[in-house]
Amino acid sequence: MTTEPRFSLKVRLHQGDAIALGPGKIELLEALRTTGSISSAARSMKMSYRRAWLLIDTMNQCFKAPLVSTAKGGKGGGGAHLTELGEQVLRQYQQMEQTALHSIESDIAALMAHLKPQ
Amino acid sequence: MTTEPRFSLKVRLHQGDAIALGPGKIELLEALRTTGSISSAARSMKMSYRRAWLLIDTMNQCFKAPLVSTAKGGKGGGGAHLTELGEQVLRQYQQMEQTALHSIESDIAALMAHLKPQ
Repeated sequence: MTTEPRFSLKVRLHQGDAIALGPGKIELLEALRTTGSISSAARSMKMSYRRAWLLIDTMNQCFKAPLVSTAKGGKGGGGAHLTELGEQVLRQYQQMEQTALHSIESDIAALMAHLKPQ
Repeated sequence: MTTEPRFSLKVRLHQGDAIALGPGKIELLEALRTTGSISSAARSMKMSYRRAWLLIDTMNQCFKAPLVSTAKGGKGGGGAHLTELGEQVLRQYQQMEQTALHSIESDIAALMAHLKPQ
């Protein structure tokens, strides 16, 4: 069986010791937008509710205003949705990632050409 | 005390389950070029000789030809130097990283502007 070489690009924003934003938190924002609930988003990412809640709390603490608005209780453990700032930050991060990926396409191809075929 | 927000960008090449190249291995290549020995390079990165050796072995296995040439024994545990391919790959990675960073400078600034001052 052969596996194609691949590459990954990860951009993170750090605020003190905390990661304010990175690939995992972006994936969580996307899942929250899709599912509308922390528990469903956590499940779709195979992480605990507690872990998802902590990631959201970190984001909300690091930014000038919350990225996610949560409502406690109710069916499914309470709803959650992206705030206006959350939507904006998610969009900006995704655009930035695309820009970075696009800028290094040919460099990556040149580097990968040196890898041994498996 | 305030800490300025900062960001990090990490690009990794994956070959199967192995990371063929990433920020840690690039730092090791740079240290090997400066010090000319695995033990000194490892010490400068506060990692064990064994760990440095394993990282070098992974790189050498993943690429079509070794990136690092090592000589066993002798004072200081044997010398090590970058091969021609090692020098080329290091240069290409560094250029790619600069290109990616440059391409997202303004996006990063826009995202960081949303972070709460600490």
